[in-house]
Amino acid sequence: MTDTPDKARLRVRIVFPAGTWMGPGKAELLERIIHTGSIAAAGREMGMSYKRAWELVDTLNRMFRDPLVESTRGGAKGGGATVTEAGLRVLAAYRRAIDAAYLAGEEPIAEMVEMLSDIPEE
Amino acid sequence: MTDTPDKARLRVRIVFPAGTWMGPGKAELLERIIHTGSIAAAGREMGMSYKRAWELVDTLNRMFRDPLVESTRGGAKGGGATVTEAGLRVLAAYRRAIDAAYLAGEEPIAEMVEMLSDIPEE
Repeated sequence: MTDTPDKARLRVRIVFPAGTWMGPGKAELLERIIHTGSIAAAGREMGMSYKRAWELVDTLNRMFRDPLVESTRGGAKGGGATVTEAGLRVLAAYRRAIDAAYLAGEEPIAEMVEMLSDIPEE
Repeated sequence: MTDTPDKARLRVRIVFPAGTWMGPGKAELLERIIHTGSIAAAGREMGMSYKRAWELVDTLNRMFRDPLVESTRGGAKGGGATVTEAGLRVLAAYRRAIDAAYLAGEEPIAEMVEMLSDIPEE
């Protein structure tokens, strides 16, 4: 995600016709599963409960034809987990969509940035 | 917003460097203020409390150098409200950013759509 401190960044949720969606939270969870090899650890890094992380993975796995995450061992204490080839494809497509969106929106975003007040009050 | 039933649509939040943001809720509120001429009525159409609608308008007015919404009469029962020229500009820029984002992301979004399961379970 475009995320330099002096630039605007985008949070994009892609809402599919069936009402399911892919957004920054699911993308981040997939990335952290890649890095940690564990659903529980990935969720923990995001301040998410074990239950919530598993629910999100379950949602992702049902949303798409092929599962995006496979539990390699499983078990209540959390076994290893792998992001599948389908998962890597979805993640890459999501990132491509965000990057393209950011580039395409640069001019109108810059227009808004110029109109911001100098002293933000939030 | 691109919102046909058979296509994916985008919900985009533009997060500015100061941490303030412009997103679909604020854009919709501005649009409804244009149509209704009233902050209270616009909020009501969105299932939002009177207080919440006013808070959002206040946030928008502080975020940008020039106010985006002006209360033409005011008063506790909700007077008339107008979206200013600055408000119209911000709204137009936001819509341009979303449309550009959608077009730019069409290919990766289509890739994700093709990977969706046929029977969504949500």
